[in-house]
Amino acid sequence: MSIRIQKTFEALFALEEVRGLFRESLPTGFDPAEEAAFRQKIAEVKAILADLEAGTGTPKVTKIAGSIDLRTREEEAINIQPIQAAGRLTTEARKALISYGDGYSTCDACRKPFRLDKISKPGIAEFHADLAKFVGMDHARVVPGARRGFQAVTGTLVNKGDTVIVSALAHYTEFLAVENAGGVVREVPLNDKNIVTGEATAQKIEEVKAETGKFPVLVMIDHFDYQFANEHEIKEIGKVAHQYDIPFLYNGAYTVGVMPVNGKAIGADFVVGSGHKSMASVAPSGVLAMTEEWLPKALRTTSMVGDLTKRKFGIKEVEMLGCTLMGGTLLSMMASFPTVKARTLKWEEEVQRSNYFIGRLLKIAGSRVLSEYPRKHTLTKVDTTGSFDTVAQTHKRRGFYLSDELSSRGIVGEFAGATRTWKLNTYGLSDKKVRYLADAFCEVAEKHGLAVEK
Amino acid sequence: MSIRIQKTFEALFALEEVRGLFRESLPTGFDPAEEAAFRQKIAEVKAILADLEAGTGTPKVTKIAGSIDLRTREEEAINIQPIQAAGRLTTEARKALISYGDGYSTCDACRKPFRLDKISKPGIAEFHADLAKFVGMDHARVVPGARRGFQAVTGTLVNKGDTVIVSALAHYTEFLAVENAGGVVREVPLNDKNIVTGEATAQKIEEVKAETGKFPVLVMIDHFDYQFANEHEIKEIGKVAHQYDIPFLYNGAYTVGVMPVNGKAIGADFVVGSGHKSMASVAPSGVLAMTEEWLPKALRTTSMVGDLTKRKFGIKEVEMLGCTLMGGTLLSMMASFPTVKARTLKWEEEVQRSNYFIGRLLKIAGSRVLSEYPRKHTLTKVDTTGSFDTVAQTHKRRGFYLSDELSSRGIVGEFAGATRTWKLNTYGLSDKKVRYLADAFCEVAEKHGLAVEK
Repeated sequence: MSIRIQKTFEALFALEEVRGLFRESLPTGFDPAEEAAFRQKIAEVKAILADLEAGTGTPKVTKIAGSIDLRTREEEAINIQPIQAAGRLTTEARKALISYGDGYSTCDACRKPFRLDKISKPGIAEFHADLAKFVGMDHARVVPGARRGFQAVTGTLVNKGDTVIVSALAHYTEFLAVENAGGVVREVPLNDKNIVTGEATAQKIEEVKAETGKFPVLVMIDHFDYQFANEHEIKEIGKVAHQYDIPFLYNGAYTVGVMPVNGKAIGADFVVGSGHKSMASVAPSGVLAMTEEWLPKALRTTSMVGDLTKRKFGIKEVEMLGCTLMGGTLLSMMASFPTVKARTLKWEEEVQRSNYFIGRLLKIAGSRVLSEYPRKHTLTKVDTTGSFDTVAQTHKRRGFYLSDELSSRGIVGEFAGATRTWKLNTYGLSDKKVRYLADAFCEVAEKHGLAVEK
Repeated sequence: MSIRIQKTFEALFALEEVRGLFRESLPTGFDPAEEAAFRQKIAEVKAILADLEAGTGTPKVTKIAGSIDLRTREEEAINIQPIQAAGRLTTEARKALISYGDGYSTCDACRKPFRLDKISKPGIAEFHADLAKFVGMDHARVVPGARRGFQAVTGTLVNKGDTVIVSALAHYTEFLAVENAGGVVREVPLNDKNIVTGEATAQKIEEVKAETGKFPVLVMIDHFDYQFANEHEIKEIGKVAHQYDIPFLYNGAYTVGVMPVNGKAIGADFVVGSGHKSMASVAPSGVLAMTEEWLPKALRTTSMVGDLTKRKFGIKEVEMLGCTLMGGTLLSMMASFPTVKARTLKWEEEVQRSNYFIGRLLKIAGSRVLSEYPRKHTLTKVDTTGSFDTVAQTHKRRGFYLSDELSSRGIVGEFAGATRTWKLNTYGLSDKKVRYLADAFCEVAEKHGLAVEK
């Protein structure tokens, strides 16, 4: 690890220890012993800072709580891990987390009617309104991950034995959300380009009707899927769903937070997004947004009454189980939000960089791209069976030679050992990083005797 | 705000900006422009540090992301807010959060079979085993808050119209979890000491059987309730549940993480705890633990098969919706865990300090304690209608005079404006802090003419 990065973490940690001294002291300030401890700790921070500046010293802290390694891959390396790219925190989110990490930190100014989305200090109520607007819907709630958004919708709409239309590339959490509600998934087939079309969706709906005698109760489709990150015919699918009067859930786990999304323009009844996947937020976090029409159903408030005490908790929403993200998760979403909003407007540049990298990769003889190409997303599935895997066949490290070569160049996040089909994500990489990344792959190819077209 | 505390946050934030420079640079290191920016930022940190040490300077950063205030109450004040006390992060948790805040930070080394609780780097698998042992059960999973633990159990056991026994002091999330599964709550009455007894539970079970013809499907009772934090006859209740062969969920939101809990010794089938309430963790987090017997049911893996693709996601657990806490929430739990384990062994000291404070409060003429007394917990409901409220009657600030008086002494977390019945929590306060707290209340009382017994 770079000693400077090591020392940055040590300085942050030492300052957290300084902070700990304030937490232990009386509101009246330090007593002499505390003041002495404080001075000593500050001297430590200064020494760390001197090392940090000069790039000197040796690692002093290698574990957190005795067993947890420091995680420095985002500082050390270019990380192309498929699902991590757009969940990296912004600097503002990291600051918010420092400030609001404590358990119920959102609840300092919780007043009647005692519900998370009504709190105005910090501006959680306003954030909820902004969030709904951001995805072009009427109402939004934060949820512990996109999957909990799916669950709230299936919990509302799906009864035992009901059918839900998903894509042949649906994420496993959609399967689970349907199963959890007692429903059954039916998959829409892909066309020859691995795209889910409106037409195929309509056919599948008809098929379900013919077989079961009942229409599906929900259509839940990913705008970009998790396998190829191909763009599916989401608007046509929305239209088809409406023609059949079936509610449509737009799964924006790979879109909300990275590209502009307008749920109503798409014809969505529900929009679900992921905080830790695409909104630069702490896990588990996400958003469930909906049109006005669905509010009384999906966000129905409790009608349970205590038989003995006659207690009612009327404002609490059943599918949310009351409050959802009561601390650092939410505040990281909120602090990243201005940046997230702004970055969606630069999505085309992200896609260009993705295409630049894939273009360069394809110049390594034998490489293929399994996702649609040109790319419309930064997540891509590639097939290097004809290139990097030919080397792995005879290399003593097998497929791990590629990981070794990449990591020696400061590139991480590929699936270690995989040299056939694998996924990568260039989201958030600057021009110079993408160039560096492409150069590195070409360099490794040439080093191992693969032809690279110039 | 104390300028030193302000400067501590500013130093942390500036270091996060330094960290941002590493994130933006190539793995090969800084270019000259980046190096210059780095030097400048380090100079800033040094200047902040000089102010921090000397207690000089003026606030430079007052908002995060343009709109979020710094949250410094844990550094500035003694916080007696009823639900926040045991959720405050440990210093190690704050370090872990700095290191693992990014979205899917837990997933760097996720390998087959691709499930959170199987990851060994960081030691998530080991943590799960430790967690089960910690609460005296066979299996544990982390969940996004205790409520999601309830939901997993009601989702497993409760069918439409089924009855679930809860206490007359049950938390609203228990109501919602039952309602969400289609069930109905029936409350066990309290005895004259506001305690739920085993006997009353048995009677309620009989009542339900007599009225509905069916036995309840679940008994879900809080060891200490959220209203009075009275200790209920949890062991006797467990015994009763077993006599009727009804599964018993032990709600340890106010115990797991602060006092020793042995689920099997209590006769629990399920133990639920809250990370952000009692385990010094980021919200939403919690634990659901169970005996071996319940594993195949409550943690059943998916049996859904894609009709077209024949896809199966066999290892994913339906009620968990797959992975649960994929980042900073979990790592904060893990980093706090050694401290949390150790602190449960010092619970009696916490209770002593709670009793010391309440004892002092009761010396202010007219004050009463509504919770059982002597206290067995650090959360307490008090009634100051006969003391502090008599002052509020004629004070121009009404009940807010008390908040003013407390906050001017560095005490926060009382319900602002409330001078009749209100709750407070002394958890985690040191001896000198509890003395300071008690002195402050007595001082305020005397200042406003209330008699204080010496």
